[in-house]
Amino acid sequence: MIDTDLQFADGDWMGGGGPACDVVISSRVRLARNIAGYPFVAKASTQQRQEIVALVARCAPKWADGMVWVDLSAAPSLDRTLLVERRLISRNHAKGSKPRGVAFTRDESVSVMVNEEDHLRIQVLQPGLQLHETYERIDRVDDEVESEIDYSFSNRFGYLTACPTNVGTGIRVSVMLHLPALRLRGEIEKVRRAVKDMQLALRGFHGEGTEATGDFYQLSNQTTLGRSEREILGDFVDGVIPSVVEYEHRAREALLAKRRVFLEDQVFRAWGLLTSARLLDADETLQLLSLIRLGSCLGLIESVDPIAVRSLLLLTQPAHLQRIVGKRLDQAGRRIARAELVRERLAGNP
Amino acid sequence: MIDTDLQFADGDWMGGGGPACDVVISSRVRLARNIAGYPFVAKASTQQRQEIVALVARCAPKWADGMVWVDLSAAPSLDRTLLVERRLISRNHAKGSKPRGVAFTRDESVSVMVNEEDHLRIQVLQPGLQLHETYERIDRVDDEVESEIDYSFSNRFGYLTACPTNVGTGIRVSVMLHLPALRLRGEIEKVRRAVKDMQLALRGFHGEGTEATGDFYQLSNQTTLGRSEREILGDFVDGVIPSVVEYEHRAREALLAKRRVFLEDQVFRAWGLLTSARLLDADETLQLLSLIRLGSCLGLIESVDPIAVRSLLLLTQPAHLQRIVGKRLDQAGRRIARAELVRERLAGNP
Repeated sequence: MIDTDLQFADGDWMGGGGPACDVVISSRVRLARNIAGYPFVAKASTQQRQEIVALVARCAPKWADGMVWVDLSAAPSLDRTLLVERRLISRNHAKGSKPRGVAFTRDESVSVMVNEEDHLRIQVLQPGLQLHETYERIDRVDDEVESEIDYSFSNRFGYLTACPTNVGTGIRVSVMLHLPALRLRGEIEKVRRAVKDMQLALRGFHGEGTEATGDFYQLSNQTTLGRSEREILGDFVDGVIPSVVEYEHRAREALLAKRRVFLEDQVFRAWGLLTSARLLDADETLQLLSLIRLGSCLGLIESVDPIAVRSLLLLTQPAHLQRIVGKRLDQAGRRIARAELVRERLAGNP
Repeated sequence: MIDTDLQFADGDWMGGGGPACDVVISSRVRLARNIAGYPFVAKASTQQRQEIVALVARCAPKWADGMVWVDLSAAPSLDRTLLVERRLISRNHAKGSKPRGVAFTRDESVSVMVNEEDHLRIQVLQPGLQLHETYERIDRVDDEVESEIDYSFSNRFGYLTACPTNVGTGIRVSVMLHLPALRLRGEIEKVRRAVKDMQLALRGFHGEGTEATGDFYQLSNQTTLGRSEREILGDFVDGVIPSVVEYEHRAREALLAKRRVFLEDQVFRAWGLLTSARLLDADETLQLLSLIRLGSCLGLIESVDPIAVRSLLLLTQPAHLQRIVGKRLDQAGRRIARAELVRERLAGNP
């Protein structure tokens, strides 16, 4: 049995809608903050880390209408992976051994990683494209945190952070995009070059250092120094993202207009494989679910339940899968269990 | 509309059973014969070819309890391709423009190509592994033909043929084998080397000069000179073929015992793709049907109708497909029509 007490809400980070949700899965804003009087995490002693952990654990229930606290030093590895899969902590934060933790609201929209790269990494994650709202929310959480904790702040540079790319506002803004039509039309490289020219980062489904899988991409700003939060939000949110969304929409329309049978073939083959395979690895599953999601958004497979597809994106990941099955599984066992779960959840024929 | 008067029996060359039919699709014996007093086909004048055609067309109704005659010089190209797909004529015989034809029985088990490489190529094709019976049958047909026609025969060499590899008995014996388990276990190359050492030829689904597709292989003897029909049959039929059949049986048992989930995954993925795809090309279809046939033979997909699978192996080929649809189709159109036909015929879920 999996040794976990963590309980999660039914809702999931993949989002249950929101503006432009056919292309934008979720909106995320993250603030990097450090506590005055303490060295950065990498230089802090175990004792100092422990003090920071204790401070946040004590305050967390008051922030954002109440957050739960998870002590990651004590959490079993499967629980930590579960938190990674739910986007509540980073892969690096799941590793480590020193005092560290995470606080999050029951609905998982707000979280605070403690002793990751910075003392505090505050995150707000919301479904669809709603970065302005997400920013307003995190700004309020930031104020609440600051009412209890003294931030390291320089009048010249702004918020001080462990990594120079975060100095200033300490803000990182990102969206999870679903761009299957651009990939099917061979236009992803064009997008990649364009965002690189704008000093934006296009990352994979699993975040920093990962390749795009299943046509899911995380697009985020890179630098924060010397610009206000509003400037960063303005360029990115009102300029770049709507352009990429529009570009994906046009690609979908072009496929529907000019290559409809090809598109249907791709979508229904994905359906056929997901409802028939006896072995599924995580990457293939993501790729096939991506095509089903596209088909569902375009009305090509009408009887598919979009909620089932969305939840499978989360539940077919290794830790979630093992939690559902209720036991630890090796890779071979996960491939079998994943295929069974997918068949069960997609039961019924389009 | 397709311009054809050809009518075919429901039965098809893929066989409806017969001994060892889980591995041996069909047994074929072919005799190369030439008519005394005429040069070989390549050297014959149009007038001489015409005389040979006229002779066979006149005699055919009396042979093998009655054969129909098709004048290939007059047949539309789609009809000729149809005859190729039904194994009644060779690809080379379908091409050409000079006087030539084919006679065959209504059940298509006996056929005589006229003015292919030799004046006469007599063939008997039967389902499953029954080469002795097939040989007995062709021996009787050979006698019937010889009662009307003087063969070119040398006391020293035997039957004279256009190609030296056929001189002697003029016999070629072949079986169509279905070897999916050997391929899945990576053992096909071993078989290929072994049969090559025995001077046998392993060819593809579509015969001479083609690659194996969908795990279907034609295995045939190569040389005929200096050996009696009985010797050729003995070595091949009682020695080699049972060994290959046994080898495939063991591979199937090993997969079932050691890699059952992998095997089921392969079979059900094939099912998922065949029942979902909107575009199917001929080779992929053959490959997927091969896996379904394996799954059906092993009882993994029980509700699949083996007859539907068997007939699809024939009907998804280009000329048959166009005949069913009732119009000429380009390659793109055939991919759509093939996927529709397959979905329709496999309707129902295992």
